[in-house]
Order: sequence, then C-alpha cells, then structure tokens
Amino acid sequence: MIATVHAAWIAVGSELLGTERLDTNGLRVTALLRRHGVELRRKAVVGDSEDELVRELAATLGVYPLVLVSGGLGPTADDMTRDAVARATGLAMREEPAVVADIEAKFASIGRRMPDVNRRQAQVLAGAELLANPRGTAPGQRLQHRGSTLFLLPGPPRELEGMLESDLEPWLARHAPGGGIEAVVVKVACVPESEVEERIAPLYAEVGRERVTVLARPGEIRVELTASGEGAARAAELARLVTRARELLGPWVFTDRAELELEAVVGALLAEAGATVATAESCTGGLLAERLTAVAGSSAYFLGGAVAYADIVKERLLGVPAETLRDHGAVSEPVARALAAGAREVFAAGWGIGITGVAGPAGGSEEKPVGTVHLAVAAPDGETAHRLARFPGDRQRVRWQASQLALEMLRRELLRRAAPERAVAEAQEATR
Amino acid sequence: MIATVHAAWIAVGSELLGTERLDTNGLRVTALLRRHGVELRRKAVVGDSEDELVRELAATLGVYPLVLVSGGLGPTADDMTRDAVARATGLAMREEPAVVADIEAKFASIGRRMPDVNRRQAQVLAGAELLANPRGTAPGQRLQHRGSTLFLLPGPPRELEGMLESDLEPWLARHAPGGGIEAVVVKVACVPESEVEERIAPLYAEVGRERVTVLARPGEIRVELTASGEGAARAAELARLVTRARELLGPWVFTDRAELELEAVVGALLAEAGATVATAESCTGGLLAERLTAVAGSSAYFLGGAVAYADIVKERLLGVPAETLRDHGAVSEPVARALAAGAREVFAAGWGIGITGVAGPAGGSEEKPVGTVHLAVAAPDGETAHRLARFPGDRQRVRWQASQLALEMLRRELLRRAAPERAVAEAQEATR
Repeated sequence: MIATVHAAWIAVGSELLGTERLDTNGLRVTALLRRHGVELRRKAVVGDSEDELVRELAATLGVYPLVLVSGGLGPTADDMTRDAVARATGLAMREEPAVVADIEAKFASIGRRMPDVNRRQAQVLAGAELLANPRGTAPGQRLQHRGSTLFLLPGPPRELEGMLESDLEPWLARHAPGGGIEAVVVKVACVPESEVEERIAPLYAEVGRERVTVLARPGEIRVELTASGEGAARAAELARLVTRARELLGPWVFTDRAELELEAVVGALLAEAGATVATAESCTGGLLAERLTAVAGSSAYFLGGAVAYADIVKERLLGVPAETLRDHGAVSEPVARALAAGAREVFAAGWGIGITGVAGPAGGSEEKPVGTVHLAVAAPDGETAHRLARFPGDRQRVRWQASQLALEMLRRELLRRAAPERAVAEAQEATR
Repeated sequence: MIATVHAAWIAVGSELLGTERLDTNGLRVTALLRRHGVELRRKAVVGDSEDELVRELAATLGVYPLVLVSGGLGPTADDMTRDAVARATGLAMREEPAVVADIEAKFASIGRRMPDVNRRQAQVLAGAELLANPRGTAPGQRLQHRGSTLFLLPGPPRELEGMLESDLEPWLARHAPGGGIEAVVVKVACVPESEVEERIAPLYAEVGRERVTVLARPGEIRVELTASGEGAARAAELARLVTRARELLGPWVFTDRAELELEAVVGALLAEAGATVATAESCTGGLLAERLTAVAGSSAYFLGGAVAYADIVKERLLGVPAETLRDHGAVSEPVARALAAGAREVFAAGWGIGITGVAGPAGGSEEKPVGTVHLAVAAPDGETAHRLARFPGDRQRVRWQASQLALEMLRRELLRRAAPERAVAEAQEATR
C-alpha cells in the first residue's frame, strides 16, 4: 500500500514542446490511475534535455508517492531518461545481458543485426525491476527512491499502452489504495444545456453535485457520472446512476457508452429495423452522408445521398418544384420537405432526410440569418417531421450542428415507431 | 534584455488534469516565444490547488528568466493563482480600486451588478504591472521576482490570445534577445515521404539538416523550413527558402501557407478558371463533397455531388452501365470513369470526379484488399485521368486519403490546363 494517493506524470520528448504535438498519453493514464484511487496532481513535459529531466525528478521524487516518466528510452543519444534518473537518484547503471540478448533476438527475427547503439537500452538502474516491452525494444523499469515508486515507461502510445496493461495496472491493483473513482457518460444530442441541467437536477440532490458533471459541446451534452469504492460495488453503483439518469432524461439519452457517436446509434437502429435511408443535403454539403457512412457496415442501410448545392440540382435531380424554390426560397420548410421526399424517391429508400440552410459566412439575410437551417425527415409511412433551427457559430459549426440534429430527428422518429409504448412511457417518466 | 532565453509554461486548471481536455494554449505560446528567440524548456499542468502551484512556482522562479502562468484568475474560490503567487513570492496583495471600477463597468454594460466574488479579481500583487483584458473580467499581471519575469495570464483561449498580442508580444519585442526562429511550411499531397526527402535533399546540404524538417501525415507531407535572425533579414531568408523548396519540389507544392487546406487551394484554382465541379462518391461516402463545400464561397464552383453507395444508385442515378458493374465489379477503373462522367452529366458540371473503393473493415478480397480505391477525374475537354491506389490504415484513414488524392488529381489537371508552359517548366526545374 502506498502512503497517499498522489501521482506526477512527466512526458519526455522535444517534439512535445513544439508547436504541433501534445502529450496525449497522459489522458489514458489519468483514467487508469483514477480507477485505482490515485489522483494525478501534475503533468509536465520536458524536452530531450538531461538537465531539465533531472530538475523534474528532483521536484517530484520524495514528494509524490508515484512518479511516472514516459519517453526517452530509445537507443539514440537524445534518449536520456535512464541517464537523468541515474544522476537524479545517484543510482548506478549496469548493462543487463538478458536485455541485450532479448533486443538481439528481436532484430534477428526481422533478419537484421542489432545496431550497437541499442546497447544503451539494456542499461538498467541498480535495484530496478525490468518491465517487458513486447511491442518495442526498450524495456521499462520500476524502482523505489526516497519513498516514491518511479516507473520509466516508453513514449510511443502503442508501446506505452501495452506496458500500462501488463505492468502498471497489475501493480496498481496490488499497491494502490483502491476505492478509486470511475466515470460513465450518458450522451444527449441537440437539447439545450439548461434543459438537461433542469432534468438532471434531482440527481445532484441524490448523490451530490461533485458526482454529476454536465459538459456541453455543440449539438451534444455529456452527463458524466462518477462512483467510487471497490470493484463490484462500484460497478453496481455506476449501473444504478445510468438507470437513474435515463429515468430523468428519458429518450433524450442516445447512448451510455462514451465512445459511441450518434451516427453509430442511428445506424444500429436502422439495421435493427431493417430500414434504409437516403439523404439530400444542401448547406451540410455531404457531411450527413459522410457521418452515416463513417460507420462500418453502413452499406446495409445507407443507399445513397445527393449534395444539391445548386438550385438547378435540387430541381432536376431531386424533383423540388421550381415554383417552390421561387416562392419560398431555397432555405425554407417546403424545400426541406421536398428534398426529404426526393431523397426517398431517387434512392428508393424507406427514410429520406432533407437539409437546406445558410452555413455562412455569406448568404445570410435579415429574415434568414447565417445559421438558419430547415431539416425534414420523411418516414416510410408518409409522415414528415420538420424542424427550423438557428445555429450559432461559424460555417463549420453550423454544418456540424445541422448534421447532428438531422441524425437526432431520425433517431427519435425511428424510436417512436420501433416501440411507441416504450417511448411514451419513457417520455412520461422523464417529465414526472 | 533578459539574461538567457529559457521559458517555463504553467497551465492551471483541474479540467486540464482530467481524461478529456489538454492544454492547447501552450502550442500558440511556443510559436510566439520562438519568433522572439525564447525557448520553451518545460510545460506543466497543475489542478486548482494552491499547494501544487506554489511548488511549481518555487521550481521555476529564479530558474527560468521567463515564467508564464495561464489560468486560475477567475472570481471563484477555485481560482487561486493570485494567492499562490503571493505565497510563493512573499509579496503582499491589495485590492486595486481602478480594477474594481473596471469590472463593475463591464457588468453594468450588460445590465448587471458585479457579484461580490468578482472583487477577488481586483487583487493585485505588490509591484505588479496590470495587463488589460478587454475580453474578460480578470486583468493579467506581470512582475519581477528572483531574476524571473512572471506573467499571470487568463486561461480561456480567446482572452489569452488577446493578452498575448497586446502585452506579451510587445514585451518580448522589447526585452527578449530577438534573433528568434520562425518557421514556414510548404505542403505536398499524396507523394511518398521518401520521394519528398530525395527531392529536398539539396536543401539539407545548403542550409543544414536542422533547418529542414519533413513531417508525414496520411496523404500530406509538410516540409518545415526555419530561419533565425532579425525581422526583415529573417523574412527574406524564409522567402528564399520557400522559393528554393518550390524549385526542388516543383508543382508538388500546393501551398506555402501552413493553415491552407488542399480543398481551399483547389477551390481557388476552380474559381480562378471559372470552372465547375461535381462528384460521384462510393467509398468516401460524401467526404469529398463535404471537404469541397467546407470552403466558404464554394457554391461558385461546386454544383453538387452524389453518394452512390448502392450499385443500383450508381446505375440509375449516374448512368454506370449494368454490364460494367457486372463485368468489372463496383471497385474498378471502368466504374470510376463512368462515375466521373456521370457526375459531369447529371450535375452539368465542367469537371467530374468519381471514387469507388473498399474502405473496410469488411468487403476486401485477395484481388481487391481493403484500401483499394479507383479514382477518376473527367475534364471538360473529354480527357479522364485515372489512378488506382492501395491506401494503408483503417476505414477513416482510407477514406481520408482517397478524398485527398481526388483533390490532388483535380489540382494537377487544373494546373496543367491553366498554364501548360508554367507546369512543364516547373516540372523540369523540379527534376533538374
């Protein structure tokens, strides 16, 4: 058991101090540490500079019970993590024959001889445990110093990930205090943040405000719910929170899996229903079709789409009547409805989606400012849902939100038809 | 003049220690510092913890001539940057009436009274210069301590950006050593990294390897060129490097503006030529149309696109002959050509682009593995260019690279027709 639960993270690599790349390894480590009750208190990035790393080690060893260093374990002169640790701790290093043999074998397996520089990777600090690296040549190392446990981990994400699983996680399971925090996320699309806040409010009272976080992004709200404690109890508590959030938010919730995008959820509903869909887009310019087809297996339900940028295309290809375009303008409810109907017709699809709007920066008017979008979803039963939206933000953001709302409209129409009683019951629960 | 040219960056905020968000402010600061000859030696992230920030300040003040802290200047109890600096430096704080008045005026201008908590933002450290924040309520502060210059800057990117321009940049111009490093980027699409390396090699010899960096991304190579020295001389040297890189790489270079995407360059060429384009996509699912229309003003040249996912759509909508589909399969050169021709026809466009391929993960065969894509670009003069590509990577990456190659093919065809002599001359120069 370690004395307290604080950790420090140090990423090594000059490329992480440039103008392009960020240290993303820290993100996945954070979640892992949290699950085991360890709190990451600071992150640092230093270049390939022995002096800088020695300074960081001096500032963290003996201060944080757990210090994780990632990167700088390669074979070149730039890779100075081992040397910096030797200097910062005063520990000796020796070349470990077993490691040399292992690296030689890895080179031999691809028909090459080990270059001499790779011997550097076999330098092991006195008293360190070696951590196997099946995905690279440099082994990791773990040692104790001034009350801290120090892990030296590889920088390449794939190698790091392997070592987190094979070494850090089991070590945390044995030595960390446990009772860590785990989070789940329920996601809602195209509902104002304030309405989600209002619906979720009872949960604040029930479990405490610090365990419920509402994060708003354009077109998407994420409600993060956390639970602490040990394995099974924590999992049960998380499941209970999800159930409760679903009670409060009803069919607004499109998933409780953080990694699942709206297009994948809609795709699964279409596949489940054996339904097909086609799109007719103006201002989104193909973004909706692109998102629908980004899902592997989408050819099972997505038949095709038209990007009708020019009015003549809306008319000739999708059958939007010329007088509708003339009387109402291209950005109008009748045109959105005609596009949705046209998509069904042209692609012989069950469902059709039409989008027309002003993405900007030009093209806005007082009556139809930038961000004005009409959306229509035509169902196989002949019904057509319509929404008029006024999205804030720039061209890209308007287009994104329009594609998001189109997917959400389709999801709700599919849900309503798939299980009308369930949808109604959930809606009633949600408004109790 | 500061004694050396090293800086440290500290970002404050618990949200930056979670599993979702990274400190991206550091990236823009890095470029700014470099231009003024200041090298960022370390970056750190700490949560909203006074103890942690005090520790970071103790480790950096007196060590780095320039220490930049971003965040923690808000009005709530979480915002403890001012308090931490007072503790770390031993400096007193006083409430500055002018700042209180300024914050009150900002609230008054939106018809509200200043909440009492906002008084915290008027706490000023003894000896600090105030830095105006027109985009927020909290002013920044600048002070000297133990040989370091310490900037306290806001965390919200928009507010930070304003203060970098109005305060840090002018301060650097006066106090930094100058002679900094500035970079330009020339971008090349769809050429193997090794070929770019080979062509650019003379530049390594001419200006030194450390001033030329080749960065490969899927479908795009960026050649970063750097120059140091003072204002006008540096600008002239950068211009010379760009000219030389263009000589070596010839018409491969699609831009020397880092922020410009290929679709914007192609769009400008289309607009310049008064040409129009339409697309017929299968495996890219609308991504090509989406990219073309992501450019503001694209309605001037983009008429429309079809996403022909189902074969029946390729046949009926785009006129791909049934026997071509049957004899060659949907993923084939004749189908790509027919799609390009169909796009021109259906949308009455000058140029037509056809894409058909296997994006994966399913659908591959021994003959046509995942990543196989046929692309065709049909010109107004009746000529059609075709390429067969085998892209590595997952579904998303295959689709991205296919859209990139389609744009690059169109760019080259447009160039060739716009200025045949120029293109030929450039190609000859490039192969000298």
